[in-house]
Amino acid sequence: MTEKKILQGFSRLTPLEKLHIAAGNCAHPETTEELLLSFLHPDPQIREILAGISENTISAYPLPYSVAPNFFINGRMYMVPMVVEESSVVAAASSAARFWAVRGGFHAQVHGMVKNGQLHFLYRGDGGKLQEAMPEVEIYLRKFTAVVTAKMEKRGGGIKTIRLKNRTDILPHYYQLHAEFDTSDAMGANFINSCLEEFASGLDQYLGDTPGFHKSDYEPLMAILSNYSDGCLVEASVHCPLRQLDEIVPGMTGLEFARRFVMAVDIASSDVYRAVTHNKGIMNGVDAVVLATGNDFRAIEAGAHAWAARSGQYRSLSRASLDEHDFHFTLTMPMALGSIGGLTRLHPLAAKSMEILGMPGARELMMIAAATGLANNFAALRSLTTTGIQAGHMRMHLSNILMQLKATPEESAVINEYFADKKVSYQAVADKLAGLRNKQ
Amino acid sequence: MTEKKILQGFSRLTPLEKLHIAAGNCAHPETTEELLLSFLHPDPQIREILAGISENTISAYPLPYSVAPNFFINGRMYMVPMVVEESSVVAAASSAARFWAVRGGFHAQVHGMVKNGQLHFLYRGDGGKLQEAMPEVEIYLRKFTAVVTAKMEKRGGGIKTIRLKNRTDILPHYYQLHAEFDTSDAMGANFINSCLEEFASGLDQYLGDTPGFHKSDYEPLMAILSNYSDGCLVEASVHCPLRQLDEIVPGMTGLEFARRFVMAVDIASSDVYRAVTHNKGIMNGVDAVVLATGNDFRAIEAGAHAWAARSGQYRSLSRASLDEHDFHFTLTMPMALGSIGGLTRLHPLAAKSMEILGMPGARELMMIAAATGLANNFAALRSLTTTGIQAGHMRMHLSNILMQLKATPEESAVINEYFADKKVSYQAVADKLAGLRNKQ
Repeated sequence: MTEKKILQGFSRLTPLEKLHIAAGNCAHPETTEELLLSFLHPDPQIREILAGISENTISAYPLPYSVAPNFFINGRMYMVPMVVEESSVVAAASSAARFWAVRGGFHAQVHGMVKNGQLHFLYRGDGGKLQEAMPEVEIYLRKFTAVVTAKMEKRGGGIKTIRLKNRTDILPHYYQLHAEFDTSDAMGANFINSCLEEFASGLDQYLGDTPGFHKSDYEPLMAILSNYSDGCLVEASVHCPLRQLDEIVPGMTGLEFARRFVMAVDIASSDVYRAVTHNKGIMNGVDAVVLATGNDFRAIEAGAHAWAARSGQYRSLSRASLDEHDFHFTLTMPMALGSIGGLTRLHPLAAKSMEILGMPGARELMMIAAATGLANNFAALRSLTTTGIQAGHMRMHLSNILMQLKATPEESAVINEYFADKKVSYQAVADKLAGLRNKQ
Repeated sequence: MTEKKILQGFSRLTPLEKLHIAAGNCAHPETTEELLLSFLHPDPQIREILAGISENTISAYPLPYSVAPNFFINGRMYMVPMVVEESSVVAAASSAARFWAVRGGFHAQVHGMVKNGQLHFLYRGDGGKLQEAMPEVEIYLRKFTAVVTAKMEKRGGGIKTIRLKNRTDILPHYYQLHAEFDTSDAMGANFINSCLEEFASGLDQYLGDTPGFHKSDYEPLMAILSNYSDGCLVEASVHCPLRQLDEIVPGMTGLEFARRFVMAVDIASSDVYRAVTHNKGIMNGVDAVVLATGNDFRAIEAGAHAWAARSGQYRSLSRASLDEHDFHFTLTMPMALGSIGGLTRLHPLAAKSMEILGMPGARELMMIAAATGLANNFAALRSLTTTGIQAGHMRMHLSNILMQLKATPEESAVINEYFADKKVSYQAVADKLAGLRNKQ
């Protein structure tokens, strides 16, 4: 039974044949095919680039491509491209950027650019003896991988360290070669994985060639980079005198605002239910830049959240404080971004994002993304601790419903005014709109 | 100085004016404007919907829209729409889906659909007395929010529980109302946030109206949903007799494959460097479905990774085991998805994704996304523990470089053959291609 329904050889069909089959699941297959095709770019070359990025591609999924101006970071003004499907993220980032631009802007720095990779293997021989041989093993492996590393070394990168880790606490006979890499302006996944797979062969060869070792004791399990980039940290911060926060909410002093803001961040440092949403808000900004520049947001997400849990408790990635005179707000997170390689040059709009940013290197791009994350975090907490977020969100929600109901600008104006002091729901808006339309 | 460079009133400019300013940062402003405009959809109505989803929108960022066929889940065959910019994710998901379709398919279930929200507040009165009043407070708040909850209750959802949590361990006088919600097929963020903001006002009113309490003791801090949906878990699993794994790699028995596979998952359960990349691979599949259906991947990411750290150590979200006869592989993770509301109906392609999936409800969509995550995890570990991932990745890398260098199909064929047994790098491919072109 099951076998009968399986589509055979689907991957070898043409895009149009695949599209035809996918659309066959829909209520109106023909209009579905038309709609899906309508999202393809008119230029065949661009279409081919986009289709070639993934497999079984039948259309192009559009996300809003936006810019957030007025990001003043380390004394330089940026307009930040953001790709995000959630309403009010770009508005919030822009608003926070503008707010801080006149208060000294964002201060950012990169703490290390080290990336990690691991060769996982079983070794049934004497682990102590292998450990003793490590200085020699390292030289051997560096020679063995020279053909892979030569070009990266010319660009200032390469293998930094190779350590043996005894992890027989996890599994019997289980060891790792844990290596650190500098991949310069590239995210470096291919380079790291290639080095590690060479390590797997190289270690095999070393154990076979070296008296006192036996390659039969060695069973490689897997070789792969780690997205836990705890040696590749970026920090972005803002600070200002308390009196410069005075005007945020009418009737609230800067001290009062800062006190509530710091409490909100302290809560996110200790309560997991709050911390998750707090950090999610940071990632709204970070991921929007990551996507806009052709980087991989799953890698950044996984590393950031695991790092947020490094103390044994999942905590806020940002921290805030106030002293007698000043307010301080800082985000620190791991972020292994690339400014060359991957999709950054290949995707036509990722390439444009880099131009709009002034062609930053990897370090500069990390600082821009971190500043954007901090901006979104600031804007979210500012709303939450003052007017509440629903006011803004419900306006956005209403505007989405009006679009869905295909309201005219005139109808939208009437409805917006009507709902200024009322609860927004799809049904309530639909009813009101139907009422308006019946009147005419 | 700083102030001078600030763009004033940017948000009020027309999209074309914004585009003009953004393109002004690029080397060729006119061609940049043309390129950015070329990504906008030809239909003005669709263009307006997409632009209205975010703010300061100047173009539409295309991601490949793909389908992965042959997902046999709980006895039903699905073609899964996936939106992902990383090569080989869709191919890997399709391959794993096909593999398991003839081995009983994916078994999935939802454990709970509870979403969380919190009203954070300071209470300087007697916390014990407030705790005693909670049954009355709960009735009061339910009445107070009735106007917000009426429609959700008709759809079978609503407020499930409201608890007072004393969190003076974190901050002096700090309490929470922690509420659980059922939001039916909606992700429910707006509903939850609206309820919580009503709680903030309602509690204020209760304390003012009730003898023995004083509203001056009460300071609301923030009211917001939590993306830590630990009561909204989905599980997807596969299992089969070991002998059905025999043919995976020539010369490797099913038992041998399963042994290595289980070791790989066990390592990801205990080593954070490995766990992060392991879970990242799961999210490759999950997020591709989340994006294709108009859901919010930052929310799913944050909740999943924090949950992976709930034991105090960040661990794999999946687990594998083998007994005498069978191999078992299971993914469990929190996942608060919506099948209505949000962008799911608004984004034209998200709406089509739902149709291609047969209009699933939220529970069914959670199971589909989890099965896709498990499929990607299976495919990644299968490669890693057998042939290594670089073979496949380098083929994809080569094809990206060839596109970038605008190689013709004939040139690509020659280059692909040449690099079959050689290291791929941009420079090496560019050199080889230049050589080819000079010959002609």
